[in-house]
This record gives sequence, C-alpha cells and structure tokens, in this order.
Amino acid sequence: MVIDFIADYYNNIEHYPVLSQVKPGYLRHLLPRSAPLAAEPIEEIIKDIETHIIPGITHWQHPAHFAYFPCTASTAGILGELLTAGLNVVGFSWVASPAATELEAIVMDWLGELLNLPKPFLFSGNGGGVIMGTTCEALLATLVAARDRKLAEIGEGEIGIGKLVVYCSDQTHCAFAKAAKIVGIKQGNVRVVPASKTTSFGLCPDELVRAVRSDRDRGLVPLFLCATVGTTPTAAVDPLLPLCRVAREHDIWVHVDAAYAGAACVCPEFRHVIDGVEGADSFSLNAHKWFLTTLDCCCLWVKDPSALRKSLSTNPEYLRNQASDEGGVIDYKDWQVTLSRRFRCLKLWMVLRSNGVANLRNFLRSHVRMAEAFEKLVAEDARFEIVVPRRFSMVCFRMGDCVVVDDGVANLVNKKLLESINGSGRVFMTHAVAGGIYMLRLAVGATLTEARHVAEAWKVVREQADAMDVEGIVGC
Amino acid sequence: MVIDFIADYYNNIEHYPVLSQVKPGYLRHLLPRSAPLAAEPIEEIIKDIETHIIPGITHWQHPAHFAYFPCTASTAGILGELLTAGLNVVGFSWVASPAATELEAIVMDWLGELLNLPKPFLFSGNGGGVIMGTTCEALLATLVAARDRKLAEIGEGEIGIGKLVVYCSDQTHCAFAKAAKIVGIKQGNVRVVPASKTTSFGLCPDELVRAVRSDRDRGLVPLFLCATVGTTPTAAVDPLLPLCRVAREHDIWVHVDAAYAGAACVCPEFRHVIDGVEGADSFSLNAHKWFLTTLDCCCLWVKDPSALRKSLSTNPEYLRNQASDEGGVIDYKDWQVTLSRRFRCLKLWMVLRSNGVANLRNFLRSHVRMAEAFEKLVAEDARFEIVVPRRFSMVCFRMGDCVVVDDGVANLVNKKLLESINGSGRVFMTHAVAGGIYMLRLAVGATLTEARHVAEAWKVVREQADAMDVEGIVGC
Ligand SMILES: Cc1ncc(COP(=O)(O)O)c(C=O)c1O
Ligand SMILES: Cc1ncc(COP(=O)(O)O)c(C=O)c1O
Repeated sequence: MVIDFIADYYNNIEHYPVLSQVKPGYLRHLLPRSAPLAAEPIEEIIKDIETHIIPGITHWQHPAHFAYFPCTASTAGILGELLTAGLNVVGFSWVASPAATELEAIVMDWLGELLNLPKPFLFSGNGGGVIMGTTCEALLATLVAARDRKLAEIGEGEIGIGKLVVYCSDQTHCAFAKAAKIVGIKQGNVRVVPASKTTSFGLCPDELVRAVRSDRDRGLVPLFLCATVGTTPTAAVDPLLPLCRVAREHDIWVHVDAAYAGAACVCPEFRHVIDGVEGADSFSLNAHKWFLTTLDCCCLWVKDPSALRKSLSTNPEYLRNQASDEGGVIDYKDWQVTLSRRFRCLKLWMVLRSNGVANLRNFLRSHVRMAEAFEKLVAEDARFEIVVPRRFSMVCFRMGDCVVVDDGVANLVNKKLLESINGSGRVFMTHAVAGGIYMLRLAVGATLTEARHVAEAWKVVREQADAMDVEGIVGC
Repeated sequence: MVIDFIADYYNNIEHYPVLSQVKPGYLRHLLPRSAPLAAEPIEEIIKDIETHIIPGITHWQHPAHFAYFPCTASTAGILGELLTAGLNVVGFSWVASPAATELEAIVMDWLGELLNLPKPFLFSGNGGGVIMGTTCEALLATLVAARDRKLAEIGEGEIGIGKLVVYCSDQTHCAFAKAAKIVGIKQGNVRVVPASKTTSFGLCPDELVRAVRSDRDRGLVPLFLCATVGTTPTAAVDPLLPLCRVAREHDIWVHVDAAYAGAACVCPEFRHVIDGVEGADSFSLNAHKWFLTTLDCCCLWVKDPSALRKSLSTNPEYLRNQASDEGGVIDYKDWQVTLSRRFRCLKLWMVLRSNGVANLRNFLRSHVRMAEAFEKLVAEDARFEIVVPRRFSMVCFRMGDCVVVDDGVANLVNKKLLESINGSGRVFMTHAVAGGIYMLRLAVGATLTEARHVAEAWKVVREQADAMDVEGIVGC
C-alpha cells in the first residue's frame, strides 16, 4: 500500500505546485490535539497524508524543483533506505554489525576511486572514508580533529583555543561558521575573505595569504581553511592548488567542501575542478544532493583517520569487545560526532550498482546540458543577463541592466520577479546575492527533470517578466 | 521484491545467529574491487545481500537480541521511513516543506503530553520539541546553547570557555564527555562524580553539591549537568528532584538524558522516574531505542528554544524567505547542529497512530514483565545474583559469590561466561562494569521478543554456566 502510494505520488507529482502554497500554522487545526489511544488502520493514515500532509510538501522530487541544490531520490536509493530500515542495525562499532562497517569502507573506496581522489584518501592508501548524515557533521568532525591536533602542538593552557583562526570566503556555506562556533572558535576569529566577481567568486589565494600573515603578525594561530568546490550561492570553485600551497606553508588543515559539485567529478571532463585536492586534508560531498542517494548521505574522506580518532573516539566499558580491543577493525563511532549510525552505505552501494557508473555519468551530464540550454535561452533574451559563468548544472541570472539602471533597483525587480515565478507554483527557484547582486538560481538536478521542464521554466520566467510592472517597481 | 525480502528476513530471523560470526575483513574479497560500469539488476544485488551481507549482520531485530539497549523497528516505523525516503524533502526551514516542520511540532507536543512533561517543555507552553538523529546531537545542541548563554553572562574574553565546568556521574553515557570535548570544555573540567552501589548507581546530590562548591571555590564556573534516567550500564535513575534543586541554586543547565528509559514514562506507573523534571532545562529520549521507531529518532524538548536559536541559528541570504523573515514559523535548522534534516516525524507519527497509545503501553509493559520473569529465574539459581535492582526491562546479573570468592576472579569468570553465551549465536547480551563489578546485562526490548525467548536466554546462560570450568579459570 505504501509502495503504491509512493508510485502514485511520483506519477502525479507534476500536478502538484512545486512550492507548497499553505499558510503558516495550517496543519495544527487539521490534526487531533493528542495521540490516539486506540490503533488506527494504516489506510486512515495514508488518507491523512494525502489530504493533509501532501499540500504542505514542497516537492523536492518535482521535475520543476530548481531551488537550493537538488536532493535526489531514486528507486535504488529509496529501496536502499527501505532495507536499512528493515534491517535496522546500529553500526557504531564493527562488532555491532560487521557488514555495516565493512561495506561502508569498501563503498567509500569505490566512490573515492571514481572521483579519482588521490590514494592517500583511500583505505588502500592509509586514509579512508566515512558516511555521515550531513556536511555540517563532516565540518564539525574535521574541525575538532584539526583543533585538537593543533592544541596538542601549541599547548591548550598557554595559548589555547582563543587564538585559533579559521578561514573561508564570503561564499562559503554558513555551516562552516556554525561548526566553528560550536567547537569554540572565537567569533572574531572566523576570517571571512571576500570573493569578488573578478574571480567569479572563487577565493583568491593572495587574499588568503594576506589574511593569514596579518593573523600571524598579531600572534594568532591559523588552523583551518574550508575551501568550496561549487559554492551555494553561485557554484563557484575555489582554486585548490594555490590555496593548498598557502595552507601547507602555514600548517593549516584544508577541508574541501564539494557538497553539491563533488558528484560531477565522477565524469573525467569535470574532474579538473578538484585538481590540487592532493594538498588537502579532507574532502566531502553529499551523495544525497546530486548523486541519486536519498537524504541523508554525506561522504567524507580524510588522509589521516587517526586525527579523527584522537578527537572523537570513546571507549566505555559497555562498548568494549574483543575485535575492537585487538585493533584490527574500524569502529566508525570514533570517526564521527554521533555514536549511533544508520546503515547508510547500503543505499549508496545500491545506487552505484543498480545504475552503473556509465549511467550515473550520463545522468549528471544530462543535467549540465539542460543548464547549458537554459543559459543559452537567457543569453538570447536582451532583458536578461547571466551574472556569473554557468558552473555545472547551475545558472545564475537576472533581469539585466538594459531594463533597470542601478543594482539596488535591479535587486528589487529581480526579487519581485522570483516571487511571482514561485507564486505560480509551476517551478521553484531560489536566489543568491553575491557581490551585491541579487540573482535567480536555476539548479538543475532533480531525478525526473527533463529538457522540457527546463524549457518550461524559462517560459515561466519570461511570462512573469512580461507581466511585471518594472516601471512601477522602479518608480517606487 | 525488497518488501518480500524484508518480510522473509523477519520470517527467518530466528534461524540466524544473533551475533554475526564473521571475522574482520571477511567482506572485502567477496566484493569486486570497484563499482560496476554497467547497471546491475536489482535481483543480483538482493542475492548479494543474502549471501554476503546477511552473514555479517548482527541482528538487532532478532528476538534474542538482548545486548546494549534495544533499537526497535516496527511495521509502522519501517513504512514511515519508506515514505520519508519517497518524499525525500529537506525540511531545514518551514518554507522548504511546511508539513515537515508543522507535523514535527505537533507530534512532539503529542509525545510530550503522553510523557506528562511539564507544560513549559511543550509548544503550547512556550517551550518545544525537535527531532534529531541521536542523543549525541541533543547533548551537543543543549551544551552549546548553555555555553553561549553563560559566556554572554560572564564574558567570553575575561573568563572564557576555559573556566566552564560540566557535571555527570561515572554512569553517564560517554556521549556526554565527547560532546563536552567537542564544544571546547577543557578535559579537566568534565567533573565525573562517582556513583556507588549504595545509591544503586544513581548520582548522589550531596556529591554534586560538593563538586560544585569546590569548583566555585577555585574560581571555576559551573555550567551544565547531564542527569540520566536509565543509565547505559545498569539503567540507574539519577534523582532529578534534588539534583535540579542543586543546579538551580548554582545556575546550572540540567539536561535529562532518558535515551532508553524515557519511553517507559508513557505508562503512568513509571512516570515517577522523571519526577522533578520540571526543574530541568531540557529532556531527551531516543524513540529509536524502545519506542518502535526505526533508527534514527532522538526527541528533544527544551523550555527555552530561544537559547538553542541564539547559538545555532544561521541566516544566509540564499536561505532567506518571507515566512522566516516574518518570524511566525519554526525553522528547525536553528534548533540543531545540522542544516539538512530528514522528515523524521512521519515515522513517529505513524508509530503513535498505527499502534495507539494503549498498545504502546502494553508493549513496554510486556518487556518489563519479561525482565521480571528473567530476574526471578536468576534469583532462584544459587550460583547467580542480581547485581543491582532490576530497572525497567533490564536485568544486571552475574555468577555470584557462592561460586567465586573475590570480585577480580568473579569478573574473569563472568567475562568468560558472556563470551561462551554469545559464541553460541543463540542470544546476544553485552556487559557492564559498575562499582568494579563485571556484570551481564539482559536488556529486553526487541519488537519480536516473547516470553519464550527470555526463557531460552536463561537456558543458554545456565547451560554455558554448567559447561564452564570455573575451577580452571579460578586457578589460572
Ligand atoms: C557547499 C555546501 N556546503 C554545505 C552545505 C550544507 O550541507 P548539509 O545540509 O549536508 O550540512 C550545503 C548545502 O546546500 C552546500 O551547498
Ligand atoms: C543513556 C544513553 N545516553 C545516550 C546514548 C547515546 O545515544 P545516541 O547513539 O543516540 O547518541 C545512549 C545509547 O545507548 C544511552 O544509553
């Protein structure tokens, strides 16, 4: 029944408005005030999902979902998740379910090889991979590892946590500043280097050098750089090669956050975007973003797993066991923030096998081609402009300067435009602001998206632009 | 096909050894060295799961799984998880899927009321609940909130993070010390108060007072107490009423970790174990432990959500939206460590509805009765003793002092006994050490466990005890 429901959901998904049109608080008066004393039939619950829950869903699996970054489901991913729930094992240590640990290590080596990650990131090269829920957790884990390694060097008492400085650009995902805050980095010591349009919003190595030098001059201790491949606002790429060179000189841990774009590196023609990763300490991507694996599945590789273990391992008596004591096994609880962990590698393994690498590559390429097509349509319309060069499957655009004169007004016009586009319910896009410019983002990547949906998206954009009272907005 | 596989799995589960009997590294040579280029049929993958994965599974859903704490699956839980994967929405903010946020708030109020949590923990009383993956994350989130609130009071610069002290007992789950470490509490400032057999391993309020006073005398700043209801080693209960009184006096944030035993509080006759919770700041339980909801599902309630938000909220431009700007909605990303979050409340809602509260209570009671029966069997055998009074559905026992004379030897004997019990593959139990005593833990709670499985577990224990060469062990 549930399988049928899901199958019907996907069959009907194009009939739903992509962005939920409900108002805040819509659900509370539709449901009972408390849990039922007696059991209710599953039919009843499914009916409620249809009538009460579905209208409140923003459909991430809708082929016209172009907002944020994609969060892709697929048959293999969903079935993998179902198996995970069915077996429902807790693989915190090897003994608690050997297959859960061993399959994860194998699949992480598989995927690492596909990405052509340097050998030191793989188990076969004395590094290794681990699956967490989210990039936030990957950032947290690597930051703590780097922090503790540095504090062990410089002494906790003498200089201490208050001197540690972390680096990112103003395009870096907010998850990084949040992780830094959580691990106790002083808020004044999160160095946010501005990235500009001249570098297509990539982090400029010279700026990093300047920041690091200035911090050292003031007696602070550089700790960590979060470089991004495929930033959230514009899918920009920080240049890893020169950034890692700077970092090495100052003994800074480099994490490469490729949450969305990392997946593209399974295609040889995109792999160059992570050239230089051999100089980094850790690398992560979200397989739940653009790799057909349902939420959640963040893949993290590190060169030095012992750094994670030194910070994150626990060994209470009630979890002790012979295999762990003998030391020949991986206990993933010691690689991550949480103890309990789901058998997440099962779905990633199923996605890899049931699609095959060739199809996965074609899938990603098809999204890039659709984005290229959209980019072309935008470029052909004199009212619009491509704000930053398209990267991967994302196009950042706006109604341009032939229509309105200054950025302030343009920003307002484009904000209104986005509102009316999303209000149509026919597509869902979100926005970004970079270099002071408000732009619309079309992120292609939903599993069901086809060329016609992208064409339709452009039609909606044009129609809403046609209908817009630009003069009125400019006047106000 | 996958549903059939899972149904077969549950039909056959009793034929598998509970504890996987594979050796470290068993899987690597059974699987190909890399991901396949071409797609493979799902039948092929399922076959591999049967032949290669299942032997490496330690079956948490096996009715003879009495190890650790239970991690319960159920039909409703599994179907809920399946729906979550099918819809695959990312509910970080209200607008990203209103139903995901609103249902979570409603279900957390439902469950909070069932537990008879004081009104200030519920949305209807200006507090509120949030679902995270694990207790580790709940501890991390509340610790950071408490830390930042305190630092705002005392000043980060002047006194700083290095002066903050957190408190727990030596029975507290290691997740707490790990969370404290992550948020930058000095390792020397994690005060672990020993709990003894005289208080049945509950944390003694007088000891807490002593520790807090001594810290204050040394100029340190008491921050946080993690009290446990149902400790991991022995299911001990820290006395909330007096502990919260002490904490209030010294302005200490109290978190109540009821990861396993919290579920029991839906039964009125067990609710007294959290008497005094009205003096705490936050309370959490793992619905994936003893409440039929598949991994992962940690339910956290706080009295002051704004404390979480002050520490954990982010507001980058690319996530801004009208509903959030207007402030009338919950954006759960601001209540937790991670940004992306699964639609976890769906399964909890389905578990509550499709079982009904009355059945859920009976389910928990049946486990307690089975544990009582086991306790009785142990007590009747002169070779064994109950080490601490049974709590909830957990029995802690050992081969006792009529057999061996001192604790050191007894510990060795019981370790060997546990090894041979688990080596049988017929049941799986784990151990704990408290007050220097090594004991076996029988934690009843797997969904399929019936009285006969507990009787069988006792049979295995007795048989292995009969077969043991105690003299030989004592002699060596
Ligand atoms: C570049 C980048 N990093 C990190 C994140 C946060 O990911 P998560 O929600 O998995 O923590 C995102 C999410 O969109 C992202 O785009
Ligand atoms: C009392 C207690 N607290 C915390 C935990 C850790 O739970 P999680 O794995 O959800 O972080 C456990 C796990 O067994 C526990 O028993």
